Order: sequence, then C-alpha cells, then structure tokens
Amino acid sequence: MESFFSFLEKRVDDCSSLLCIGLDPHVRDIKEPNAASARDFCLNLVKQTSRYAAAFKPNAAFFEVFGAEGWTALKDVIDEIQAESNRMGSMIPVILDAKRGDIASTAEAYAKSTFENLDADCITLSPYLGKDSIEPFLNYSQKGVFLLCKTSNSGSGDLQDLVVTIDHGPWTMEDNSSSMVHGSSSMPLYEHVAHLAQQWNTRNNIGLVVGATHIDAMQRVRAAAPDLWFLAPGVGAQGGELEAALNAGLRKDGKGLLLPVSRSIARAEKPGLAAAELRDEILGIRTSILANR
Amino acid sequence: MESFFSFLEKRVDDCSSLLCIGLDPHVRDIKEPNAASARDFCLNLVKQTSRYAAAFKPNAAFFEVFGAEGWTALKDVIDEIQAESNRMGSMIPVILDAKRGDIASTAEAYAKSTFENLDADCITLSPYLGKDSIEPFLNYSQKGVFLLCKTSNSGSGDLQDLVVTIDHGPWTMEDNSSSMVHGSSSMPLYEHVAHLAQQWNTRNNIGLVVGATHIDAMQRVRAAAPDLWFLAPGVGAQGGELEAALNAGLRKDGKGLLLPVSRSIARAEKPGLAAAELRDEILGIRTSILANR
Repeated sequence: MESFFSFLEKRVDDCSSLLCIGLDPHVRDIKEPNAASARDFCLNLVKQTSRYAAAFKPNAAFFEVFGAEGWTALKDVIDEIQAESNRMGSMIPVILDAKRGDIASTAEAYAKSTFENLDADCITLSPYLGKDSIEPFLNYSQKGVFLLCKTSNSGSGDLQDLVVTIDHGPWTMEDNSSSMVHGSSSMPLYEHVAHLAQQWNTRNNIGLVVGATHIDAMQRVRAAAPDLWFLAPGVGAQGGELEAALNAGLRKDGKGLLLPVSRSIARAEKPGLAAAELRDEILGIRTSILANR
Repeated sequence: MESFFSFLEKRVDDCSSLLCIGLDPHVRDIKEPNAASARDFCLNLVKQTSRYAAAFKPNAAFFEVFGAEGWTALKDVIDEIQAESNRMGSMIPVILDAKRGDIASTAEAYAKSTFENLDADCITLSPYLGKDSIEPFLNYSQKGVFLLCKTSNSGSGDLQDLVVTIDHGPWTMEDNSSSMVHGSSSMPLYEHVAHLAQQWNTRNNIGLVVGATHIDAMQRVRAAAPDLWFLAPGVGAQGGELEAALNAGLRKDGKGLLLPVSRSIARAEKPGLAAAELRDEILGIRTSILANR
C-alpha cells in the first residue's frame, strides 16, 4: 500500500511535470450556466492536458453551485480522470479543492464523501480547528491532505501573518529561521502551521498550501517543513513569478512543489499546447536551479 | 430590508427560545444509510420541534456524504422549514453549517450556492483566509455568517489558543481584557478573531461560533465583541454546562446566544417535548441571571 505522496511522485516522474491542472468550471468560462456545461468544460480540459498533468484539481464550489446535478458532474469528471489514467497506463491523482474543516463525525462524513464516494485521492483542508479535525482524513493512509498554510490572497495576512509566541513543547526547533526569545519562539502563524504539519505527518500524507504570490513566506515554510509537498497556487493569473517560486519552494530533490494553474490553461486557444509549454518552462527553470545549488 | 440578525431576533422573540435545532442526519441515527432516510429524519425533527426552534441548522456534511441525492435532500429540508414557517406565521432562519472558507470567485460560488440556490439564511465560515474570503458572503446584506472563533473540540487549542501579539493599528481597544505590552497587545488568536469580527460587522451580519465547552474563552470573546450573536455548540452531548454558558455568553439584553443542540433532542423519545423542556430550562436560567446582574 503506497502513500498518497509516493503515488504523486510516481506520476510526477511518469509525466516529468509539476503542473496541477485546476478544473474550475466558473460560470464565466462555460457555455451555459448549468452542470452539463461544467462537466463538458472539465472533460475537454482533462482530455487535452492529461499528458502534462501531475495531478488534476477540481474545485468543489464550481460544482456545488449547480446543486445535485453539479455533484453528479463532479463525480463524472473524477471518473473520467481515472478512465483517462487507465488508458495512458499512468494514474493521475485527483485533489479535491474543498477547504473543508470540521470535527468528529462531521469530519468523518466529509472524508467518506471525498475519499470513498467521490474516490478523490486528496483534499485541501483548513487547519483552524486543530489536529482532531484533520485526523479522520489522515486515517485514510493511502489518501492525502493539503493543509492551508499561507494562502495566495491578499487577505491571507489577516490571520496567517500574525506573530504567535510558542513555548517550547514536545517538538524541537529543527531550523534557525525563528527568533528565540526567553525560552520561547516567535513566528508567523503560517510558519507554526508548517511545523505542526511536519510533526503530524507520520504517514506521509500531509502537504501544505503555500501561495506562490508570497515568496518570503514560501522560503520560511520550506525551512520549517523541508520534506513536505507544497501546493502553490498563484503562478500565472494571480501574478506569482515562476522562477522565484521554484527557487523558494523546490525540495533538494527537485520535487515537493505542485503548481496549480487554471485560467491560463483553460482560456488558452490550445490548452494542451499551453500546458506542454508551461510544463517545459518549469522543467527548464528547475534544471537551471538544481545545477546552481 | 432587515439584516439577518434582526430577522433572528424577531424569531427569538416570537418563540421565546434560544434553541437552534441541529439537523444532523448521521448515518447512525437514520433508518437506512441513504438520502431519503436522511431527509425523513430531518423532516420529522422539523415538524416536532419547530415551535421551539429559534433557528434550524442543517449540517452540510451529512447530506454531502449521500452525493447528488443528499444535495436534493438538503434542499427539500430547507424548503420544508420555510413551508412550516409559513404555516406558523413566523419565519425560522436556516443556518447552513458548512464551515466553508475560500477566496474570490470560489467564495462567490459558495455564497451563491448557499444563499441563492439552497436559500439558506446564514452559513458558518472559517476565518483562516482573512477578510477577503468573507466579503463575498457579507455582500448579501440580508444574509448572515457565523465565523469560527473558539470551537468546542479539544483540538481547538492547536491554533485558536495561540498567543498572538498585535501592534496597535487602526482599531482601538475597547476593553481591558488584553494585556498591553510595549505598545502592543497579546491575546489568544480566537480573541483577536472576535475583535476582527466586531470590526468587520458594519452591516449587522456577522456572528461568532464560540463553544459552550470553553467558558473562560466565551467570557473573553463576549468582552471583545459585546454586540455579536454567538452560536455556542457543546451544551448537552458535548458536556457544556448550560448555566455557565448563559452567564458567560448572554448579552446585556439577554439575547446574543444561540444554543445548537442535535443528538440530545433527536435521540429523545419525544423530540418536541425534549425541545420544549430545554427551551424552558434555558428561559428559567436566563431570567435568574438577568435578575442578578
């Protein structure tokens, strides 16, 4: 039984890509405002970009907004990704971008919905409710979660950048990035979340969402969590710079960074070509970064 | 056009109740593990308890877990609450317990799904992504949100209890509950969230989720946000004490505290009677508290 991140790394090797193709059937991008158009939009994108996709990331909101029919369309899209994977002979992980976060039997129900019924491989989660809200998902040892850490939006600073002071407890400082004061350490909340994730990741099934729009934060998070995979939105439409993001976020092995792109691929005249070009651009920059490290 | 909290207060007056009846069709409590049973479970609970319900709170996860059919059942339940309200001549607000939290067009899609398609009146949201993730919901001026502040679970301390240090910015301290050090103030993260919510509440449509299992925290949050409504889970099955919660959470006007209960009502032999008795117990304690203030 392999872990989610072993599964993801195998796919990254198979397709030589760090691209995560976002499936965001926003009402402005689809032909008609209904679930059938949302499904068709996604199926076309899957077909055109599957060779270059290290993962696909459907966004739950854009299906949920079409109610029951949207939910059926979401299931159809995930099924089609699996069928396409089988045709290619290389399984493509599905990350459900849902940002759920609840407790006890409620968290169990969300986990069952995502991992059993929809059969997605991974989900994005909020850390605000603490470890016991994450555990029902982590108990699926072959599935994965990406915890929100430092998000790409401008309002992310409202909570995530707050300076928290941590008494030295059971975890030990493994890096020098945090200032030590009077037997405690101070750091932004997002950096503490990275430490917690590194500590909670006993089954190789936790990654972090770290916006490519905040390069300094990405460097701090990489120092705090040297082994974890990052899902790093913000390259492309949101203005994040590719080279800086790769420099800050890549692990020593040249992996560990998954770059979600949605609109810049979906709105391209030829989405497959746009994905191939971006895949190759990323590979080129990565080669140069690794050569100079 | 009234605000959500004006609407809620009218209903609280109409039914003399602070009870929020949770509609949690957990698979262990319904006859068969399917959407039809989930719907029937909720419709029965609505019918039996509507006279005592200041609000109903369906939990999205327990519908989502049944996929497209679950989503249809959720819509049926909300429609029936509105039909029952019309029969009684007093509208009962519907709070969708969904704990969503995302940005930009994704947040807009969740808001449209909740407020337009499902026609719920209010939603629970995570604050982790900051103000811009809340605004698409606040833009519905007749709808409401309850922001997660200090949740009832044991893991809530992992992030929410962290001590944050705030430089004095545009908002001013309106209370003495926070320690002032070197021109800045330190407080638990949840208390800062309460200050932010108080500051963001320019349209009377923000409340806070504050667990009745943490009385000290509830006192601090009440001091930080004297005007806001709290949704305070944890009374009953989770072990929170009713009198202590009312003492800590009630506003000066004897309102401002909505007490969600699920299992202790749903599993009672006569849910209507159980709701009536709990409603009356709360009223008795409230009368005594207000008399002694």
